[in-house]
Amino acid sequence: MTRLYNDPVNFVDEATAGFVAAHAQRVCQVPGGVIRSTRSEPGTVAVVIGGGSGHYPAFAGLVGQGLAHGAVMGNLFASPSAQQVYNVCKAANNGGGVLLSFGNYAGDVLHFGQARERLIREGIPCEIVAVIDDISSADREELHKRRGIAGDLTVFKVAAAAAEAGYSLEEVVRLSRAANLRTRSMGVAFDGCTLPGADDALFHVPAGKMAVGLGIHGEPGISEQDVPSADALAELLVSHLLEEVPDGIETVRGARASVLLNGLGAIKYEELFVVYRRVHALLLEAGIEIVEPEVGELVTSLDMAGASLTLFWLDDELERLWRAPADTPAYRKGSLNPAPPIDTAALDIPDADEIPAASQASRAAARCVEQALRATREVIDANVDKLGKLDAIAGDGDHGIGMQRGAVAAAEAAEQALARGAGAGTLLRQAAEAWSDRAGGTSGAIWGVMLNALSLTLGDDAAPQAEHYARGVAKAKQDVMEFGKAKLGDKTLVDALVPFSDALSQRVAAGDDLANAWGAATQAAQAAAEDTQTLKPKLGRARPLAEKSLGTPDPGAISLAMILDVVHRVIATAD
Amino acid sequence: MTRLYNDPVNFVDEATAGFVAAHAQRVCQVPGGVIRSTRSEPGTVAVVIGGGSGHYPAFAGLVGQGLAHGAVMGNLFASPSAQQVYNVCKAANNGGGVLLSFGNYAGDVLHFGQARERLIREGIPCEIVAVIDDISSADREELHKRRGIAGDLTVFKVAAAAAEAGYSLEEVVRLSRAANLRTRSMGVAFDGCTLPGADDALFHVPAGKMAVGLGIHGEPGISEQDVPSADALAELLVSHLLEEVPDGIETVRGARASVLLNGLGAIKYEELFVVYRRVHALLLEAGIEIVEPEVGELVTSLDMAGASLTLFWLDDELERLWRAPADTPAYRKGSLNPAPPIDTAALDIPDADEIPAASQASRAAARCVEQALRATREVIDANVDKLGKLDAIAGDGDHGIGMQRGAVAAAEAAEQALARGAGAGTLLRQAAEAWSDRAGGTSGAIWGVMLNALSLTLGDDAAPQAEHYARGVAKAKQDVMEFGKAKLGDKTLVDALVPFSDALSQRVAAGDDLANAWGAATQAAQAAAEDTQTLKPKLGRARPLAEKSLGTPDPGAISLAMILDVVHRVIATAD
Repeated sequence: MTRLYNDPVNFVDEATAGFVAAHAQRVCQVPGGVIRSTRSEPGTVAVVIGGGSGHYPAFAGLVGQGLAHGAVMGNLFASPSAQQVYNVCKAANNGGGVLLSFGNYAGDVLHFGQARERLIREGIPCEIVAVIDDISSADREELHKRRGIAGDLTVFKVAAAAAEAGYSLEEVVRLSRAANLRTRSMGVAFDGCTLPGADDALFHVPAGKMAVGLGIHGEPGISEQDVPSADALAELLVSHLLEEVPDGIETVRGARASVLLNGLGAIKYEELFVVYRRVHALLLEAGIEIVEPEVGELVTSLDMAGASLTLFWLDDELERLWRAPADTPAYRKGSLNPAPPIDTAALDIPDADEIPAASQASRAAARCVEQALRATREVIDANVDKLGKLDAIAGDGDHGIGMQRGAVAAAEAAEQALARGAGAGTLLRQAAEAWSDRAGGTSGAIWGVMLNALSLTLGDDAAPQAEHYARGVAKAKQDVMEFGKAKLGDKTLVDALVPFSDALSQRVAAGDDLANAWGAATQAAQAAAEDTQTLKPKLGRARPLAEKSLGTPDPGAISLAMILDVVHRVIATAD
Repeated sequence: MTRLYNDPVNFVDEATAGFVAAHAQRVCQVPGGVIRSTRSEPGTVAVVIGGGSGHYPAFAGLVGQGLAHGAVMGNLFASPSAQQVYNVCKAANNGGGVLLSFGNYAGDVLHFGQARERLIREGIPCEIVAVIDDISSADREELHKRRGIAGDLTVFKVAAAAAEAGYSLEEVVRLSRAANLRTRSMGVAFDGCTLPGADDALFHVPAGKMAVGLGIHGEPGISEQDVPSADALAELLVSHLLEEVPDGIETVRGARASVLLNGLGAIKYEELFVVYRRVHALLLEAGIEIVEPEVGELVTSLDMAGASLTLFWLDDELERLWRAPADTPAYRKGSLNPAPPIDTAALDIPDADEIPAASQASRAAARCVEQALRATREVIDANVDKLGKLDAIAGDGDHGIGMQRGAVAAAEAAEQALARGAGAGTLLRQAAEAWSDRAGGTSGAIWGVMLNALSLTLGDDAAPQAEHYARGVAKAKQDVMEFGKAKLGDKTLVDALVPFSDALSQRVAAGDDLANAWGAATQAAQAAAEDTQTLKPKLGRARPLAEKSLGTPDPGAISLAMILDVVHRVIATAD
């Protein structure tokens, strides 16, 4: 939904004012819309685009060198008036005639048509290319009834690059018509947007459903189905578009096309890239050469949840115009002098998988460590929800699944290292890397640091004694405090780790065996972990929202105590 | 929410693969993240950035000439591991040392710190600048505890531009620390994002509320309040940031700053521009010179509904580095040779407001026309909801408010034109322009065309007779059919307009007076309007969703019949 506005009646005017203020280097405002604020070559064709507002970067975001000369900006999702079109054309005119281009909607056809007549009456040559890329909006036999969606961009780009190159109006029209006939899009929608001040969305798609072919203003689509996987959506869109190869493309194999995967507002970049991955593979499989694709937000409908895929089938002339540089508020290409590509084969990428030779004694200790990591994995598996809920009170709730990812990866790495004859030090190092690599987050880092510290004191040669463990834990404590910049009393895992390490060192120095010393130290850690219940907000600044965490212990300290306890049992029962 | 994914476990890997496929000209994948696919100058500093995924264009979208040399990509919202950081650094290293930069989060601090130690051990000089722009995340006295949000970009940009210019690691560190200390941001949130496969959002903000200072992963903010107007939000953000002017800025008046207004995912461009309009004005009022601002999505959190404002306080050196060109998948500046600015004073912008002289008789007729337009406004006002509901069945539901905007504007323009002595022709022309200008959309266009046609036949000289009206209506019919490309039987307004025009012409030709002829023709139009009930889907293609419109008359035909009826009453009671 649209949340930020003043009086909804002024939304478009105010958005335009802000847009022009932010992009004064490239655009300036005229009655009815915007034009370039930079000079164009006299005698060249002016490309004027436009339509309703709410589709940024269409249309105003595409005004600038190498792209449109002007954009007419109607009210939200409403065609601009003929007067607006006329005004923008008069201001954008460079003396070489005007090409008007816009999505093929009835209101736009009417208003741009009226403005064209008036310009012609006044002696300004003017032609129209209404974009018709949306294959869901009418049958192939009725191309002229199809609507324009994200394929607007390819037509505008070709027209403008031709104009920039000094082509005549006739040539600009010929090329943009060719681009129009070679551009095909298909869209899907998951939910509609809500206009500023409106009570409800413009339309809804039932939860869990996807509307196929729904227009960017909610115009009826062709079917409704369950929301598919990203790959299945890619397959749906590509298969439909490959059934719609335009006239003039003899074989798909060997054809060149640009590809636009467009998000309509709330379908975000990472999702689009997941879909694009499969689209790209499918097009390559079909033998298509992909030229300068675009993945992002090219034509939106406020925050509508939807996406569309466009194929723009190229020939030499269209490819050159598509590749030509452009510099607008929202679309830039061809900047800088491109540097040459690197040789990826020569990259320095380290191999972390080596197993050095180890003593018999260290390999025996490695078995015990592997058991401890297996027990760790089990206790975390059993407590993943509990830890998640604890973390959700003050944090982002991912402590449980983060610990689980790490513990699973560490146990698996340990098992493999053991099978390959690793000593205790190498086994712990590989487990440490696996943990921090897979878990991510703060807890992953801390556990990587701790296991690494232990790895260095155990090594692969000596038969580890109780004091090796005590020294390893002490190093872990020190490293965690240093890397994490956490002090005792900060209500973190450090509050449990410090008493554990101190007790372990004391008892080992006093002559206890590892099992007894570890057991006593674990009790100290458990008590300290419970004591991390925050009694005041954690951060320095007074912030009411942090108060909800009062009375909750630190999940990192709790999971540490949990793990120390199961490791104690492994040590106590070891041969 | 995140809708498009396959197995959520693979989301980041698949997004990365799609990203790299789409942007192979600029980036290539290495274990742990991406690096530039273009060669950098040997011996220069490599700037490696990174953090959790889910924040595109941060971080991978910022890799390319003039910006980062590599980006380390952790799991969703989770720090990458030290191994990942190390791998990317090894691959990105140009022999001039490595600058690591990232948002100041505990996990990132840990992992980048570990990787730095390893690089230094291996003889690769490496330094760290953790970005701390979020003023809500800790007090000014504890800058080192602050988190990094959209201000990441300014620090990365300065570091990278310095590296590109061949500065030493020491100089790159000095400048990026300076940028870090001169960058201040503040964010707000309206709702959280939902991770792929998760049941619920990472966090929620109560409906109608705004969380101030909430972190981009949902970290606690400083307060909660009702959602403000766009202007009030601008005032809130600017006032807080102006209380946080960094050391080294002596007076705000005369200072230079860049401004970043960042959307976190679901707050879209038009909203951001509305807010920016006020931000820009407030900063100018404070005497700040604004340098190359950015309004858009720079650091997102999937589709989180939130926004942040960043001020980057410049000095000469930082300004030069901020303005330097860059060419990455998501951030490009400094392309092309900029063309000179235009002279806006010389633009050809027409004046539509002229009132030509008119005969007494035409001015009398104008009074009648003005009454008819007033009656039109009243009947539309009374039926705005009814028309909206009718249109919502098959269209976008805006017919009611569109007609209202148009009728109100036309009646107001007519009243003004009458007061200024306009004849019937001029009054109708100005009403036509006002209608289509304010209403927008298809209906606005059609009513503009119809009133314009009538304007041309009535003119400002003759005393209009019944046949002038009949001829004007016939021209309106012809123009609407021509511009709209609609035929009789298409179930549009044309289906009512044609019988109206035909009956009016016949009755006038047969000698009826205007009132009688108009009344009889209105009856024909009313019957025909009801008859526009669609019996089969309107569009050529079989589409199940269009079936819901069966049995509903066309709202444009219905509103036409409504208006003809009230105009008949005006004519019948005219002097």
